[in-house]
This record gives sequence, C-alpha cells and structure tokens, in this order.
Amino acid sequence: MASSLLSRQLTRSLRPNLHLAAPGCRYVSKTAAKPVSEFEYDAPSMKTPVPGPKSKNVGAVNFFCNYEESRGNYLVDADGNRMLDLYTQISSVPIGYNHPALMKAVTNPIHLSAFVNRPALGILPPENFPEKLVESLLSIAPTGMTRVQTMACGSCSNENAYKAMFIWYKVKGNVGLSRRKLRTHMRHPHYIVFLQGPGCPDLSILSFMGGFHGRTLGCLATTHSKVIHKLDIPSFDWPIASFPRLQYPLEEFVRENAQEEARCLEEVEDLIVKWRQKGKPVAGIVVEPIQAEGGDNHASPDFFIKLRNIARKHGCAFHVDEVQTGGGTTGKFWAHEHWGTDDPADIVSFSKKMLTGGYYHKDELVPDKGYRIFNTWMGDPSKNVFLTEVLNVIRRENLLDEVTRSGKVLLQGLYELQAQYPHILSRARGQGTFCAVDARDDVTRDNLLLKTRDKGVLLGGCGDRSIRFRPALVFKEYHAHQFLNIFNDVLSEYK
Amino acid sequence: MASSLLSRQLTRSLRPNLHLAAPGCRYVSKTAAKPVSEFEYDAPSMKTPVPGPKSKNVGAVNFFCNYEESRGNYLVDADGNRMLDLYTQISSVPIGYNHPALMKAVTNPIHLSAFVNRPALGILPPENFPEKLVESLLSIAPTGMTRVQTMACGSCSNENAYKAMFIWYKVKGNVGLSRRKLRTHMRHPHYIVFLQGPGCPDLSILSFMGGFHGRTLGCLATTHSKVIHKLDIPSFDWPIASFPRLQYPLEEFVRENAQEEARCLEEVEDLIVKWRQKGKPVAGIVVEPIQAEGGDNHASPDFFIKLRNIARKHGCAFHVDEVQTGGGTTGKFWAHEHWGTDDPADIVSFSKKMLTGGYYHKDELVPDKGYRIFNTWMGDPSKNVFLTEVLNVIRRENLLDEVTRSGKVLLQGLYELQAQYPHILSRARGQGTFCAVDARDDVTRDNLLLKTRDKGVLLGGCGDRSIRFRPALVFKEYHAHQFLNIFNDVLSEYK
Repeated sequence: MASSLLSRQLTRSLRPNLHLAAPGCRYVSKTAAKPVSEFEYDAPSMKTPVPGPKSKNVGAVNFFCNYEESRGNYLVDADGNRMLDLYTQISSVPIGYNHPALMKAVTNPIHLSAFVNRPALGILPPENFPEKLVESLLSIAPTGMTRVQTMACGSCSNENAYKAMFIWYKVKGNVGLSRRKLRTHMRHPHYIVFLQGPGCPDLSILSFMGGFHGRTLGCLATTHSKVIHKLDIPSFDWPIASFPRLQYPLEEFVRENAQEEARCLEEVEDLIVKWRQKGKPVAGIVVEPIQAEGGDNHASPDFFIKLRNIARKHGCAFHVDEVQTGGGTTGKFWAHEHWGTDDPADIVSFSKKMLTGGYYHKDELVPDKGYRIFNTWMGDPSKNVFLTEVLNVIRRENLLDEVTRSGKVLLQGLYELQAQYPHILSRARGQGTFCAVDARDDVTRDNLLLKTRDKGVLLGGCGDRSIRFRPALVFKEYHAHQFLNIFNDVLSEYK
Repeated sequence: MASSLLSRQLTRSLRPNLHLAAPGCRYVSKTAAKPVSEFEYDAPSMKTPVPGPKSKNVGAVNFFCNYEESRGNYLVDADGNRMLDLYTQISSVPIGYNHPALMKAVTNPIHLSAFVNRPALGILPPENFPEKLVESLLSIAPTGMTRVQTMACGSCSNENAYKAMFIWYKVKGNVGLSRRKLRTHMRHPHYIVFLQGPGCPDLSILSFMGGFHGRTLGCLATTHSKVIHKLDIPSFDWPIASFPRLQYPLEEFVRENAQEEARCLEEVEDLIVKWRQKGKPVAGIVVEPIQAEGGDNHASPDFFIKLRNIARKHGCAFHVDEVQTGGGTTGKFWAHEHWGTDDPADIVSFSKKMLTGGYYHKDELVPDKGYRIFNTWMGDPSKNVFLTEVLNVIRRENLLDEVTRSGKVLLQGLYELQAQYPHILSRARGQGTFCAVDARDDVTRDNLLLKTRDKGVLLGGCGDRSIRFRPALVFKEYHAHQFLNIFNDVLSEYK
C-alpha cells in the first residue's frame, strides 16, 4: 500500500531553516521530518477543483468522499483529490481516517456482539459494560466526577444534562408545588392536564451570546451562534448573558479584557436575579470553555472560575459543554483543565471526538428515581469499543504532547502570517491545535476557505469571519508546516 | 454450536392438537414445528430467578445480559438464564440476536470504512451514500414520500421533524414578521437579541393524551404517557387533544367507539382554532398509529384518515410517528399502511427496528435553505449497512407474512386466555405481533411480568396496566405457542 500513498513533491519543496521571507515568498519557518507511518499519505494531491465532477452539489453537501482511500490526516474525495484535513468532520475524528487500531477493533471477533446487538443500555446492559466504562469513559473523568451517562449524540447529551439539572434543582430546592401535592395531582383521573401547569415548572438555563449547544429544541434555546439556527423555531424565555469579546493581542489589552470579563460576570448575576424575580429561576448555567461555532471566543481561566463561583453562590448547577473542546484537542483531555481548578463543574457533556455522546456528573446530579433520564438506546456500546482503542492510542503515542507541540507550530505560524498579511488576517488564537484566525470579513474568509481547499487543505469557518482549525490528534508538526506553506501560497496570491 | 443450543424439554411438552382444556391445564391450541434454524435455541432455560446473582440491580437496570450467547428470539442473561424475548430491547431488535446476516456484514471488508470513519453526513457524505439510501431506506419509503433525512435516534428524529414542520409552516405562510424585515433585523449589530422575539415565533405542535414522542425538551412537550417523564422539566404551551379510548371487544361497541372517535376529532379542530386565536398556531399534528408507551391505544383507520384531513384543512403538517410501530411489526412495513390511504402523512419518523433514526417527508417539507436541519453526524452509515441486510432478510424470508401469521396465533391465544382468566386479563388487541392485553390493575400487571420472566419469557409493560408484546420479526408461530404455554402456566397459578 505504502508505495501508492507516497507523493513526495510537497515534501521535497520544504526547504530547511528558512525563516519568514518577504511577502509572497514561500512560508517555511522550519521543516519537520515526516513521522514514520506506513498507513498515512505524505501530502495533499489535487486532481480537480473541489467539488469535482463526481461531487454533485446537493443542499449543504460540500463534496462526496472516498473514505476507503482516506488515511490519517488526509481525506480523499470522490474525484481522487487528497486533502490535508484540518476540519475532520466538524471536529469529530479523533485519530485520523482508517486508523489501524480501529480497523483491528471491528474485525476482532470479541467485539462482534457489541456491533450486532445494540441493547437498551438503560435497562439491559451487557454484563461487562460497567467495567468497560471504567476502562474507557471513567478513566478520563473530569476532576470531581465519578459518574457518566452515555447518550447517542451531542444534542441528546445536552438535552439530558439540562433535564438532570432541572430535576436536581427541583428535588434539592423543593421549589414551587410540593411533592406531596403533586402526588395528589398525579392520582387525579385527568392528572395529565396538570402537565402544562404545576408539574412543568418555569425553570431556565442561562446561556451566553455566541454559545452553541445543539439544535434540538431545548439545546436551541441556549444556542446563539447564528440567527439561521433559531429562525422560525419556538423557544423558551431563558436568560442570555454576554460572553467576553477579548481584544488581541491579549498582552496589549490586559486591563480592557479584565474589565470586559468583569462586565459579563456582572451581567450573569443580574440575569440570575432578574429571572428569579420573573418566576423562572435559573437551574443551571451552560458554557463552552471556548465558544466554538460562535467564532472561537476565548475567556481567561479567571473568568470561568468566577463564573463557576457565581453558579455555586446562586444555587445553579454549572454545566461545561465540552462537545467540541473535549477529547484532547486543546492539549489537555478537557479544555476546562486549563483553568487549574479542582471543582470545575457539576456536569460536563461530550460527543464528537469521543465517538459517543454523554455527560459526566457529580453524585448530586443523580436523579431521585430511575427512568427520569432515559431513552431506548442511551448510547451505543460499539462506540465504546472504538473509544477504548482511541484512548489506548492517545496514551501509547502521547498524543496530548503531540497536540501541544503541533499546536505551538500552528499558532506561531498563524502569528507570523497575520504579521505578514495584516490586511487579511488578525486575532490568531488557540489552545493546543484548537486554533483560529480572523479574516477581514466574511467574504474574504469564505474565499480563503475555498482557495485553500483547492490547494489541498480542508478548513472550516466559525463565527462571522473566523477560520477554525480542528485537526485530529494525530496532526503533527510536519502537517502544521505543510498547511502553513499552502496557506501562505493562498495568502500571497490573495488580492 | 447447535448441540449446545438444543434444549428439548419444552418442545417435547407441546402436545398436538389439544384445544383449550379446563382452567389450570396447559394451554395448547396447536403445535407448530420448530422452524429449521441452526443458529437459534429451541426454548427458554432458566437457572436462577431474574435478576440473578450476577445482575446487580443498579437504578433502572433490569439485569445484565450475555449478548454473545443470545440467539434469535432468545436473550441470555449474565447468569446463563435463557429467555424467549418478546420485548426485544424496547422493540428495537428487528431480526433477533446475532443474526448471521449481520455478523457477516460487520466482518465484510467492504463495510469496514463505514464502521471506522463516521462522517459528517450533512456536508461530507460517502460517495455512494445516495445510492445506499435508495437501496435501503428509500426502498421502503411510505406512499407519497421520496425523501428521507437520517438522524441518530428517535428523539432527534422527532425534534428535527418538528423543526421541519415549523420551517415549512413559516415559509409557506410567511406568517408574522416578513422575511425582508427579518433580514434587516439580522444585519442589526445586536440581532441576536431579537431571537427571543420575532425570529422565534409562537408556533405549536398538537399532540395527544397518552402519546409518546421522546424525552428531549421539544419531544417531551408532545409526550403525555406518564407524568414522571415530564415532571420538573419546563415545557411549551402546546395543545393536547384526547386520543380515543376504545371499548373492547370492538364488535360489541361499534357505535360507542365511533362516537368516541368523533368526539376526539372535534376536540382536535377546537384546539386548532383556539390555539390560532391564542396567537400560537398549530404548525403540525403528531400522532402514533398505535399509541405504544401510552398503553397500546388503537384507533380506526377512519379516525386517522379524518385526522389527516383536518390537518390538511387547517394547513397543519401531519406527522405520523412510527418509531415504535414501523419496521414490519404490524405485518405491514408501516403501521399507517393499514389505513389504506394514498396520502397518509407529510412526515413519517422512525428509529428502533430501523436501527437508524430519521424521517421521510414530502418535497414541500424540504427547508428553504441548507443547514436549517443539521447536526454533526446526522445519522450513521454503519447503521445503514445493517439496515440493508435486515431488509434483505425481511424480503428473502417473507418476514411480514410470518409476522401476520405468528401475530394471529398470538392474538388468538390472548383472546382465549382472557376468556379463560377474565378476572385477570381483558382488552386483548393488536396488529401483527404488535399486541397487548390489559391486566386488572398495575400491581397484577407488574407481578405477571415478573412471574413470566422467571419462567423464561421477557415481556414489557406500557400504559397503566397493559402488557405489550414486541417480538422481533423472526418470531414464528412456534414461539407464539411457546409463550402462550408459559403464560398459561403463570395465569393458572396466579391468585
């Protein structure tokens, strides 16, 4: 196989130790040896513009893919174009395409039953499932959390995390209708009619402008990244606070950014009080450690620690949504680890790179009765088979260190490119390989994405005018340089 | 393997052609030859009470299962108890455990990539995915529907079906804020604040008492099967109509049942008018062809056809939720086929036995723009690999005919048992193997479920006091007789 995968043109074009030359010249800060990997390609290889003739553009479809031929960091499309993938299926591919460890897992007879017999996990789990969870999800549980609930996807995870917070809030606080009174209602022959009344309290979840937590109706009420997501869909009257808009470079705006974060925190407290007075108390606060869909908006650890304290002070649960930030992409397994606190959250939801949805939670968040958080499948043990392999690969190959290393090269390269093309790029930022840079406007951003794609690198946009980088955890320094070279070419040609 | 699977005690106990003997005697209406199948067991085999010592009872968990050893209609638990399974993971196992066709599909190298590389289907589908859908989901599309949207699970399917109806309702009707005015709002620097206002209209979905459509927040607003599902969770102010409560036996209550259905239909129209006046117009009506979780409540084809007409008359979309009834269990692929109409619905959602979630819809329900119905995964091509095999097996083995045949035996047996034990059982009803019978009260129902389980048959409850039957499509007359014998034993011993 290896011979058919080798394409050395681009590798040869990497000249050693040339620092940033004049604009328009090749960007080569440093070369890095191609990591030895039998199963990956060496470089992009483009045969047609993208989408090519075999990709019919249908609705939102970008192009059709040949997943059989894709390897590691390289996605191959239906026309045989091979692209370095820094978007990875909206950040959901943990260790690249067709990783040998995952190929082996599927064909291992020991796992056959997990693929073929999908159980109703909530009532009839496989006998070894608790041990499997200890080995996989619980081995990477956030600080202070010993429980995990699996779900099918990110939206389901957040929907159920919200429910867990509502139940927790009512059970602890015994707010509104007393439990005894409710039991009386429930015995009433038409008790079901009460379900728009006292049984379904006006509780709320506080979320942030620019936040994204999914697009089912509960999640959508807390999603505020793009208008089109919410348009025409009924929503709840829940409070929305401002998320800090930091100014870059951070070291030049220390005072302004601290003030901005203080302003947002004050607004959070005001909204909690206001919604309590409205009779719609805030049961939980939900926040992303880095607002991803909303434009890669960062805030300081200090902001999150203070926010967590506000939640505690007002008796709200604190839900950190790590659906996009989790799984190692920031150089730590969970982005909230960068805050350096030992009580980061009451609930942490995940999906995407974790291959299964779900959420971790504290003991207090266990519902008072069974079946309150429930659906038919409640996850999928076959995804846990893959996750176990992914975690083995992460540990064996020290991928979090690799992410930190390649993330530094990537971010440093972006700093240099924005210095070189200040009329096009600004606000380079990131943690690990979870990086972003802003284009001067949305049209420029969209053009840059298309031009870079035609040169063999797949990127994604987020927010109004940001480019987001979401490579897999097997993205190495080598790949960062490869991208930076190509991106430099695009920028140097950009009018 | 076969020798270890054979357990002939029960088979031998089936005496030929004995019609119902006196109460307390063995129920044997007829014997049926064991269908030739190398891979299945012959009968239940119980070693301990259930849950056995190896099943620790944790929360809602019933017992732990040994899926490796389970075969066809027989589920094996962690203690080696082998049960005839008429509940099938809450009705979600289409062709039994470890079906050879599915085992072969996983190990077929051609499918490896579908398991290992989960794509973001909405933007980067595999090149052959449209053809695969034609072969699988679209080959069984309901009348009048040529489009399907895959999703991960039943709740996601319904959430997104509701969104599709809201979008359709607004786009067709141009109700409320004009699109041009909205575009102006969207350009406003703080447009996001409008999202609790004009952008998110007060639209509603009309649902029925006793209905179940899932437990995420949007779905839950239309779910009214059990109070505990909704307790403490905020909801929408959406109209809920009565669902007919038919009296049995149907032939004795023709006039009463027709009146009851007319009453419910009138209520539906009243609610549509009332909610329109309230400023929360009904964008869609959602209904199950048989209310499953709510207690296996049936209504006549006439009821559904009239309901569908009411939806059309008032400009509401008509959504038939076939998550539990679909996939062949009623003897037709979709339960709504029993209505005999060529315009049954605008949207039909599915999951469970279909192995993937999703919904079919008419062309008009395609959103006006891409990304309006969207999430990261939007389904899972590996589930489609299995579904294709399932459909092949259904066709090859004429499983819909088998379901009709074994369903008749099952229902006839239930009729006879309720005649024999009128103080315990009543209201036997069903379509195909999708059957139910009521116990005299909830305590009796729960006891019957446990006693039957200890004798080797796994059943589920639904509604207040119903027992529901949800066998796989490979449930044959042989298995129906096996169940009826065991159930008769339980009833004859029941005080």
